[in-house]
Amino acid sequence: MPSSSPNPLLSDRDAAFQLYEVLDASGLCALPAFSEHSRETFELLLDNIRRFAREVVFPSYRLMDAEPPTFRDGRVHVHPLMRRLYPGLVELGLLTATRPHEVGGAQLPFTVASVASVYLMAANLSVYGYAGLTMGAAHLLEAFGSPWLREEFMARLYRGEWTGTMALTEPQAGSSLADVKTRATPVGDGTYRISGSKIFISGADQDFTENVVHLTLARIDGAPPGTRGISLFAVPTRRPEGGRLVDNDVQVAGVIHKIGWKGLPSCVLNYGEAGDCRGWLVGQENRGLAHMFQMMNEARIMVGLNGVSTASVAYHEALAYARNRPQGRSVAAKDASQPQAPIIEHADVRRMLLRQKAIVEGGLSLLLMASWQSDLASHAPDEEVRRRAGLLLDLLTPVAKTFPAEKGYEANALALQVHGGYGYSSEYLPEAWLRDQKLNSIHEGTTGIQGLDLLGRKVVAAGGEALRIFAEEVAATVARARKAGVEERWCAAMERTMDTVGELTLTLGSMGMAGEVEQMLRHSADYLELFSIVAVAWRWLAQAAAAREGLARGAEDRDFYEGKLCAAQYWFAAEVPRVPHLAELCRTAEDSYTRMHAEWF
Amino acid sequence: MPSSSPNPLLSDRDAAFQLYEVLDASGLCALPAFSEHSRETFELLLDNIRRFAREVVFPSYRLMDAEPPTFRDGRVHVHPLMRRLYPGLVELGLLTATRPHEVGGAQLPFTVASVASVYLMAANLSVYGYAGLTMGAAHLLEAFGSPWLREEFMARLYRGEWTGTMALTEPQAGSSLADVKTRATPVGDGTYRISGSKIFISGADQDFTENVVHLTLARIDGAPPGTRGISLFAVPTRRPEGGRLVDNDVQVAGVIHKIGWKGLPSCVLNYGEAGDCRGWLVGQENRGLAHMFQMMNEARIMVGLNGVSTASVAYHEALAYARNRPQGRSVAAKDASQPQAPIIEHADVRRMLLRQKAIVEGGLSLLLMASWQSDLASHAPDEEVRRRAGLLLDLLTPVAKTFPAEKGYEANALALQVHGGYGYSSEYLPEAWLRDQKLNSIHEGTTGIQGLDLLGRKVVAAGGEALRIFAEEVAATVARARKAGVEERWCAAMERTMDTVGELTLTLGSMGMAGEVEQMLRHSADYLELFSIVAVAWRWLAQAAAAREGLARGAEDRDFYEGKLCAAQYWFAAEVPRVPHLAELCRTAEDSYTRMHAEWF
Repeated sequence: MPSSSPNPLLSDRDAAFQLYEVLDASGLCALPAFSEHSRETFELLLDNIRRFAREVVFPSYRLMDAEPPTFRDGRVHVHPLMRRLYPGLVELGLLTATRPHEVGGAQLPFTVASVASVYLMAANLSVYGYAGLTMGAAHLLEAFGSPWLREEFMARLYRGEWTGTMALTEPQAGSSLADVKTRATPVGDGTYRISGSKIFISGADQDFTENVVHLTLARIDGAPPGTRGISLFAVPTRRPEGGRLVDNDVQVAGVIHKIGWKGLPSCVLNYGEAGDCRGWLVGQENRGLAHMFQMMNEARIMVGLNGVSTASVAYHEALAYARNRPQGRSVAAKDASQPQAPIIEHADVRRMLLRQKAIVEGGLSLLLMASWQSDLASHAPDEEVRRRAGLLLDLLTPVAKTFPAEKGYEANALALQVHGGYGYSSEYLPEAWLRDQKLNSIHEGTTGIQGLDLLGRKVVAAGGEALRIFAEEVAATVARARKAGVEERWCAAMERTMDTVGELTLTLGSMGMAGEVEQMLRHSADYLELFSIVAVAWRWLAQAAAAREGLARGAEDRDFYEGKLCAAQYWFAAEVPRVPHLAELCRTAEDSYTRMHAEWF
Repeated sequence: MPSSSPNPLLSDRDAAFQLYEVLDASGLCALPAFSEHSRETFELLLDNIRRFAREVVFPSYRLMDAEPPTFRDGRVHVHPLMRRLYPGLVELGLLTATRPHEVGGAQLPFTVASVASVYLMAANLSVYGYAGLTMGAAHLLEAFGSPWLREEFMARLYRGEWTGTMALTEPQAGSSLADVKTRATPVGDGTYRISGSKIFISGADQDFTENVVHLTLARIDGAPPGTRGISLFAVPTRRPEGGRLVDNDVQVAGVIHKIGWKGLPSCVLNYGEAGDCRGWLVGQENRGLAHMFQMMNEARIMVGLNGVSTASVAYHEALAYARNRPQGRSVAAKDASQPQAPIIEHADVRRMLLRQKAIVEGGLSLLLMASWQSDLASHAPDEEVRRRAGLLLDLLTPVAKTFPAEKGYEANALALQVHGGYGYSSEYLPEAWLRDQKLNSIHEGTTGIQGLDLLGRKVVAAGGEALRIFAEEVAATVARARKAGVEERWCAAMERTMDTVGELTLTLGSMGMAGEVEQMLRHSADYLELFSIVAVAWRWLAQAAAAREGLARGAEDRDFYEGKLCAAQYWFAAEVPRVPHLAELCRTAEDSYTRMHAEWF
C-alpha cells in the first residue's frame, strides 16, 4: 500500500521558514556579491529546481537503484536516463549557481543553493552526485588552475560537457592521505607522467559526456614523505592533443558493488599502466593537500546536506504512510468492534515521527547556518566579519558533516520501522534510503576522523577563538528567543549547556597542552556527539524563536509553528539532558577501551 | 582484503564462560528432567553443532544471500543447498534437542540449546529459520494437539519430514491480531473449511520436504469479535487423505522481496480459494491466541538469540579486519616514515569494537539468563521455583527480544563502519548482516509492542511481583560481585539503578491505577530502553564477578578475564549513567509527541 500523495522530498513551507524566518536570506542581497538578487530570484531558482526534482528526477530513483552501472569492455555504462537528467541539471544552472559571473555563474548565495540541492539529493542522490563532484573539481580549477586549465578543463566542466571526480583514496592508504603513493614524474613540457592506483572514485567513468577529469593527489618524484609531499593534478580520461581528444591511459580496473548510491559508479582507477598518462599540476607543488582541504568544508557540507536530504525524503514517506495505514486502536479505545485508527494515532509511532522531524529539520537548520557562514566568509565586505565567519564555518563543518550521517541514519531506520513488515521489503523505498545514508558516515572523512578534527583542531584553533565566536552566536540566539517569548527553561538549558561545552573544552585543551594528547582525544567521538546535540539545540532554539515570532504576528499557519515548538520541546527534553554524561566521559578520559589490549578482545 | 582467519561465529571460550562460570549449567543436571545429562553431553552437542555451523552452514551464507528463493508455477523454489543442510540439522538432533524423550527428544536444557542455536544462526540465520519455525509449530502441536495431530503432524515435523510455519499476520491487521479475519467453518467431520489470507509467512513453501504445516489463527463462524474469538488451526499445504497426501488448497500468492534473511522465503498465503482448504483445530475453540502466546516467550527469545548471533558474527569479522588492516598511525606516532599500524591501535576503532563486544556478550548473557529461567519454569521440581522463574521469564522476554534487535543493529552498523569504505561494499559481509538484523525489531512483535508489553503488563503483573523477583536476583548478583572483589562503584551503581527502576515503576503504576493509562505508557519505548540498560548491566556485573573469580583462581586465561572487566567497565561508564535521564522522561510523561497533532507534522 504505497502512499498515494506524492513525496514532497522536503517541505516547501519549511524551506521558506528556514531561509526567511529563521535566517534572513533576503538580507544577503545587501552584500555586493548578491546585490543583483532578491527573494524573487531565489524563489525562481528554487521553484525550477524543486519542480525538476519532483517531476523528473525523483521518478528515476527507483529505476537507477535497481539497475546500477555495468562495466564492460573497459568502460562504465550508467543508467541511460542520465543522458536526459544531466543536461537537465546543467540547463537549470545548477553547476554554476553559486559561481561568479566571470565564469558564467549566477552568483547566488551558497545558502540558497544548499536548499536547492536538498530537493535534488532527496529526489536522487546519485544524479546529484555527478553534478556535485563536477562542481568540486571545477571549483578547484577555478581557484588554483592555470589560465589554460581554466579554459580547457574548468569551462567544459561548468558547461556540463565533461564531468569531474576527486581522486584521493588509495587501496593501501584509505583515510591516511600521508601514505598516498601515486607518482608524478615531470615530462619536461610542463606536464607530468602519472602512475598509480586509486580506489572508491565516484563517477570515475560514465557514458553521457565525452570526458572525465580526475582531480588527483600524487607525489612528485623526490617530494618529502607524508602530507607535505603531495601535489594536486588534473588528469583527464582523454587528453586534448592536436585539437582533439586522445586516450590518456586512465583505466577503470573495476566497479565496486556499493550497497547504496546505486546510480553512481565507484571505481578502482589505474593511471599509466601503458606509461602514457599525463597530468597537469593544479596550484603549487607539494601544496596539493592544502588546496584540496580548502575545498573540504564545501565537500563536507555537501555530505551533510545529503544526510539531511536522505533522512528528509524517508521522513515524508513515513509520515504519509502513518497517516494512511490503519492498524489497531489507541490505548484509550481498545474496542475491537470499532474501526482501526491510522497508526499516526499511536504514541510510539508519533514518537518515531517527531524524532525524525527533529533530526531532519534541526539538521537542515544546522547545514543552512554553515552555508550562511560560508557566504559571509566568502563575500562579506568587512574583513573581520569574513574572518569570524571562516572560523565558525571551520568549527561547524565536522558537526554539520557528521550529525546528519549518524542521526540521519537513525532517522532513516525509524522511517523503515514506521512501515513495519512492509518497511523490510524492497517494494517500499525506506530500505533503499537507509542503504544510501550509511555511506555518509564513511566518505569525505569518517565519523572518527571528524571527531579528531573537531576536538584536535577546530575547537582549540586560534586559542579557542572559534569556540568563543560560536558561544557569542548562541548567546545572540538565546537573546532573540527570550525576546520572542520562547520557554525560559530552554533558554536557560542552552546557556547552561554552553557553559559545559566551554569548561569541558578548556579542560581538554589543557590536557593537550600538558602533552596528554591521547587522553584529550580519547573520547573525541563522544565530544562530537555532545557538540552535535548542542549545535542542533541552538538551531531548534532559533526555530522556536522564529515560530513564536510567527505566532505573535498572528500568521495563518499556526499548525506549522506549533509543530516547530513541539519538535524544539522534544530536542530539549530528549537530547540536551544527555550532555552532562557525555561531558563526564570526555572530562575523566574514561579508559575502558584504551586499557583494553588488542589481544584481550 | 577479506580476513584470512575463519570467522568463529561466537567465541567458544565465551560460550563456556557464560554456561559454566557465569551460570552453573552443570548444576541443571540436578533437575530430574536433565539427570541423564552432564557437562560432557552438553559439550558433545555443542561440539557437533559448532563444527557443522562453521564447516557446513557458514559457507552457504553468502550463496543463499545472493540467490534468494524464486516463485514459479505457484511453488517456491529455495536454494538447492537446503536439500543437504536441512537433513544435516535434523541428523544433529537440533529439532528435538530440548523435547522430552516421549516425543523422541534428547531432553537437553533450553539454556544449552540456546548456545547451540547461536552458532547456527550466526552461520546462516535462514537455514536455522526453517528449523526454528518447524520447532515452534511442532511444539504447539505437542502442547495442544490431539493424539491424531501429534502422530500425523507433530511427529513428521520433529523427524524433519515436513516443515512448519506460524501464520498469524494478515494484510489489513498487521500487529493488531484482534482484527484477524481468516474464517473457519465447521465441516461436520471434525475439520474446518479455512478461507482467508495471511502475509509475511516465513517458510510458507519450500521444495526440500514434501509438506508444510501452517499453524494458523482464524475465526470460527459466530465467534466473538476481537482477541477472544480467535482459534488455532493446523493447516497443511497437502493433507493426508486415504493414505496419501492431496492438495489442500493453500496457495502461495507471492514472495515478498525482503532485504535480508534472503535464504528464507516470506510469502502471501491464500487459503481456500477453491473452497477446499481443511484445517484441524489445535487446542480449544477461541483460545487460539492464548495457546499461541504460551509459546511466545520461546519465539521471542529465539529472536533475541538471533539478534545476538547476527551481531556476534559481524563483531568477529570486524575484529579480525581491525587486527589485519594497516592504516595510519596512532595519535602518539604520527611520523609518516614509520610503517602503518593495524587499525585496532586507533582509540576510536577500539571504542567501536568494545561497544560491539559489550552488546554481543552482554546480550548473550541476558538471553542465556532468560533461557535458564525457562528451564527452571518448565522443570524445577519445586512449584514455587517454577512460579518465580515463570514470572521472571515473562518479565525478561520483551527485554531479551528487543535489546539485541536495537543495540545489535547499532553493533552491526559499527562492524560495517570498522571496515570503512570496504564495509559499504557487498563484497564484504557486514552489510548483509546489517540487513538481516533489521528484521528483529519488527517480527514477533515490534519494539513498540515490546515496550507496551513490558510496562503495561509485565512489570505491573501480580502486584509487581515479577519486578520484586528481578530485584532479588540482581541483589544476589551484587552480593556475588562484592564477594568476588568487583569494583565497588559498579556494585553501588547497580543498587542505585535498581532503586530508580523500583521507584519509577511504582510511580508509573500509580498513574495507571489513577486511570492515566496514556501518560503511564507514553514513554514505554524509553522505559524499555532503560530496563534493557539495567538488565544488561546486571549481566555484566555477573560476568565481572565470574571474571574476578577466575583471576582469583589464578586461571591461565588472564587476557580473557581482563577483557571481560574492560567491557563491564565500559557498560557501567557509557550506558548505566543514561538511566536517570530516561527515568525522568518516563516519570514526567514528557508530552512533546502526544501534544503534537497529526496535522502539525
